[in-house]
Amino acid sequence: MANHFADRLYEAVQSKKTSLVIGLDPVYSRLPPAIRAHRQMNDEYDAAAAVDAIFDFCTQAMRIVAPIVPAVKINIAFFERYLWEGLESYYALISEADDLGLEIIGDVKRGDIGHTAEMYAVAHLQNSELIGLEDVLAPDAITVNGYAGTDGIEPFASMAAAQGKGVFVLVRTSNASAAAIQDFRDADGQALYEKMAQIVSEIGSRPELIGEHGYSDIGMVVGGTAPETTTALRAKYHKTWFLVPGYGAQGAGAADCIRFCKADGTGALINASRSIIYAYEKPQYRDQFGDDWKKCIEQAVIDAKIDLAQAMQTKL
Amino acid sequence: MANHFADRLYEAVQSKKTSLVIGLDPVYSRLPPAIRAHRQMNDEYDAAAAVDAIFDFCTQAMRIVAPIVPAVKINIAFFERYLWEGLESYYALISEADDLGLEIIGDVKRGDIGHTAEMYAVAHLQNSELIGLEDVLAPDAITVNGYAGTDGIEPFASMAAAQGKGVFVLVRTSNASAAAIQDFRDADGQALYEKMAQIVSEIGSRPELIGEHGYSDIGMVVGGTAPETTTALRAKYHKTWFLVPGYGAQGAGAADCIRFCKADGTGALINASRSIIYAYEKPQYRDQFGDDWKKCIEQAVIDAKIDLAQAMQTKL
Repeated sequence: MANHFADRLYEAVQSKKTSLVIGLDPVYSRLPPAIRAHRQMNDEYDAAAAVDAIFDFCTQAMRIVAPIVPAVKINIAFFERYLWEGLESYYALISEADDLGLEIIGDVKRGDIGHTAEMYAVAHLQNSELIGLEDVLAPDAITVNGYAGTDGIEPFASMAAAQGKGVFVLVRTSNASAAAIQDFRDADGQALYEKMAQIVSEIGSRPELIGEHGYSDIGMVVGGTAPETTTALRAKYHKTWFLVPGYGAQGAGAADCIRFCKADGTGALINASRSIIYAYEKPQYRDQFGDDWKKCIEQAVIDAKIDLAQAMQTKL
Repeated sequence: MANHFADRLYEAVQSKKTSLVIGLDPVYSRLPPAIRAHRQMNDEYDAAAAVDAIFDFCTQAMRIVAPIVPAVKINIAFFERYLWEGLESYYALISEADDLGLEIIGDVKRGDIGHTAEMYAVAHLQNSELIGLEDVLAPDAITVNGYAGTDGIEPFASMAAAQGKGVFVLVRTSNASAAAIQDFRDADGQALYEKMAQIVSEIGSRPELIGEHGYSDIGMVVGGTAPETTTALRAKYHKTWFLVPGYGAQGAGAADCIRFCKADGTGALINASRSIIYAYEKPQYRDQFGDDWKKCIEQAVIDAKIDLAQAMQTKL
C-alpha cells in the first residue's frame, strides 16, 4: 500500500477510471423500504435500531460501489446524531470500507488549534493505539475547517504525514451564503478563499507531504457550484487534490466539476451523495429496477461516471 | 429555569458575581497523582481506564467550582480522543454539570451546512429524544465555526431557539496565526472577523433569540489576546455575549479580557482552562496545599475571580 494518501488516491482514480466519490449521508427515514421492512415505525428514534439499519444500508451500498469508484466520503454528522452509538458505527463502517479496498474520506470538518487540534487528529486520523480498541481504523483522510489559520491546519497535517493519511481543508464551499465570508476581498482583489488556498498550499508543499506522483496529501474542498470564482485554482495549485462537493443533488453539473481534473483524470474527487444513495427514489431508476435499490445505486453510479467521462471528453 | 440560554447565563453571572468560566480540557497524563494512583502506567492508552479517570477528575473538579462560577466549558476533543467511549463520557459529564446547577458550554466547534448542520445540531443542542438514550442531555450552548456563512450558522440558531439553548460562533480566535484569515481586510478596511460578527449579530437579533435581559442566545467567541483589534466589538454589539478564551495559560491578562464585560459585569464569559484545572502543578499552590489538588483548584478559581474583579474596578 502506498505510503502517501495522495498516491493511493492517484492509483485508485487511475484504476477505477473515474474521479467519482460516493458520499454516505444516511438518514433512517430515507432508507429503502426493504432495509426498513423488518424494523418498527419508530426505529428512526431508537438509537440501536436506527444505527443498525444505517450500518446495514451503508455496508451493502459500499459493496456495490467498491468495484467501480475509488473512494467513499462518510459524513460523521449523520452518525453523531445517534451519539456514541452512532460514533461506534461510523468507525465500524470505516473498517468495512477498508476491507473493500476503498479510500475513505471522513467528512468531519473538525477545526481547532494547539492541543485540541492534536486530540481531534488522534481521533480522526490515527489508527487507534488504544488498549481495548486496537482494531479501530481512522479514515484515510478527513475534511478540516481552517478558520483559525495555519495553527488550525498544522496539527492535522503533521498527523497526516506521520500516518500516511490526508486532509482536505475547506476553501470554497458549495452553499449559497458562502460568498459573504469566502469571497470577501482585500484591497488588491484577493478573495479570502484564495488566501485560504495559499495557506493550505504552503503547508501541503512540504516534502514529507508530497507523494510519488507529485500530489500533496493536503487537499482542498472547493464546491462545483461556484465555477466563475474558482476556475483559477486548478491551474495555480498543480500539486493539489480537490474534493468537489455539489455534483448531483446540490446542482453543479459535470462540466463545472471536472474543471478540477487534470487531463489524465486525476487531481479531483467529485462527490455525489444523495443523488446516488437514494437513486431508488427516482422514477428513472424505479421504473427500470422496481424495488431493487441496489441495482438503482449501481446504475446511478454508472450514469454519473458516464456523465463525468463525457464532460472530460468535451473539455479535452 | 429561564427559557433563554442568554437569561440563564445572565442570572448565573449575577449570582456568582463573576464572568469566569472553567474550561475542562482533561489529559490523562496531567491528572493529579491522587487520581491516577490506583491506576496503571499505561492507562493513558486504555480507553476505559483513561475515560474513567478523566470522568472522575472532571466531576470532582466541577463539584469544587460549581458554587463559585456560573459555567463550565467542556472541550469535546479531549473526549473524542477516546472515540465512542469518550463521547459517552462527555454526555455523562454534561448530566453531572447540570445536576450541579452549572451552565454548560460544549466546546465542539462544529460547522457545516444544510442537513448536515441539522444533524450536528440534534447531536449537540437537542436533549436526546432517542429511545434507549432518553436521559441524555445536550449542553446549554455550543461553539460553532461559521466559515460557510449564514447557512452554517442558521441550523444551529434554529435549534437553539427551539431548545432554549445558545451558540457561540467563532469570530476572532486567540491563536497567533488567526490574523492571516480573520484580520483579512476589504478595501473599506473592514476585517473578516468584523464581517463574521455582523453576520452573527444579524442572526442573533431575531426576536425569538433575545432574552428578557436584552441579550441574544447567539454569542461570539473573541479571544482576549487580540485587544488592539477587537475592542470595538463590545460597544457595537450590545446584545452579544462574548466567550473569551485565552485568559491564564494562553497569555491574555484580566484587563484584556474584561473589556468584553459591561459595567454590571455581564456580557462576557472569560474562560480559563489549564491554569485552573492543573493548578496543583504550580509551586504557588503546591507550597500551600501540597497534594490537595482540589484545594489548589479552589484557590486558583478564587485568585482568578479576584484578578478579574480588580481589573473591573480599575476599568470602571
